[in-house]
Amino acid sequence: MEAQELLFDGNEKQILSTGDPAVICIRYKDVATAFNGIKRADFPGKGALNNAISSMIFEYLASRGIQSHFISTFDENSQLCRKVDDIPLQVIVRNYIAGTTALMLGVEEGMKPENVVYELRYNNDRLGDPLINEHHAVALGLVTYDEFNHICGIASAVNEALKELFAQVGIILVDLKLEFGRTADGEIILCDEISPDNTRLWDSKSLYKLDKDRFRHDLGYILDGYRTVYERLFNYFQK
Amino acid sequence: MEAQELLFDGNEKQILSTGDPAVICIRYKDVATAFNGIKRADFPGKGALNNAISSMIFEYLASRGIQSHFISTFDENSQLCRKVDDIPLQVIVRNYIAGTTALMLGVEEGMKPENVVYELRYNNDRLGDPLINEHHAVALGLVTYDEFNHICGIASAVNEALKELFAQVGIILVDLKLEFGRTADGEIILCDEISPDNTRLWDSKSLYKLDKDRFRHDLGYILDGYRTVYERLFNYFQK
Repeated sequence: MEAQELLFDGNEKQILSTGDPAVICIRYKDVATAFNGIKRADFPGKGALNNAISSMIFEYLASRGIQSHFISTFDENSQLCRKVDDIPLQVIVRNYIAGTTALMLGVEEGMKPENVVYELRYNNDRLGDPLINEHHAVALGLVTYDEFNHICGIASAVNEALKELFAQVGIILVDLKLEFGRTADGEIILCDEISPDNTRLWDSKSLYKLDKDRFRHDLGYILDGYRTVYERLFNYFQK
Repeated sequence: MEAQELLFDGNEKQILSTGDPAVICIRYKDVATAFNGIKRADFPGKGALNNAISSMIFEYLASRGIQSHFISTFDENSQLCRKVDDIPLQVIVRNYIAGTTALMLGVEEGMKPENVVYELRYNNDRLGDPLINEHHAVALGLVTYDEFNHICGIASAVNEALKELFAQVGIILVDLKLEFGRTADGEIILCDEISPDNTRLWDSKSLYKLDKDRFRHDLGYILDGYRTVYERLFNYFQK
């Protein structure tokens, strides 16, 4: 199989066609962006790290019975995935409150609620990806209530599996952003990526940030954070 | 019973103590405010209209088995209510999409979704009353999930009862904002007010706005709108 035509050129990823119309190739760029693309910088090596991390995580989830669009790693920067119809929703799962949500709620970064906090954003650049809820999503015709509940079930299973995985490599899974798509036969599965770009990952002992917040807030050593995540997961899966 | 000490002086209402510590007096001011108090104007007669409308509606809801803090009308501008511990949440129920929600979702004002849209806002002036969801509310310790579901059940019953009431007087209930409180024995009941200040009410035939949007968007004839709502309800209940 070969990556062919460029179908979509995103901020941090490209989507290419393959010989099979049911399969796409996702190429991770050596770029970081934040704040809806306003902040942007090149980071040679970032694409390969995210591709490797995301591949390992999707494989781990599959071994736990959680389906995703991931098929296989294609090359250093790319992976082959099932083509799905993207549902324009971001499902955010928070084990700790951080980032703009801490500001919004007036609580300290790192506050640990007794419950797991789920959030929905409408994936719409023009509208600024607004925070919405399931009633808005249904009103917009994006999902039915049943589909929303199904998605929440997957999000919860992913969160539980990844909290456990990261705990075993000395990392706290603070939050993660998931996206979903519909397969040709109407099944809803996890898609997009799972990497330090769309999770918050803190070292369990030092609480040192290992994720894109290093870029967002100019904390430096960005790729070192991503590399730490990669190496800990790689060593864990080598055992 | 006598209104005594001023306990709270809000933008559009005052709360006064009474001889009974379990009872408060709510006095509706002749003032309209919008955009978190930034826009403000005097409207002599508005307080009496809202007091009368809110009293009629709370009595109607009681006749339908829906409890609220309302006890009785006290004078032209005031009503006696049970003292409750306010839960700092706004529960918004939308039968049609209007106002900033239409902008947020990128849909036309007046769009009718197939579902009823519920929204939660954190009643917190300092934070700008942010749109949140039940997971945030639970994380903040404002309600339990069971209490949230109970509140949604009441909100749904209020919406169904009021849609029916307003339909009978030629008015579309576009949306309404409800607030809730805990009684001394822990029961959660409806509180605040239900008036053209916190509902959107459109004439069923002309779609003419009869609510606070006339003030927010400088449409003029503000009190005429409120008076129309009052007169139609008054005539309906006189029958």
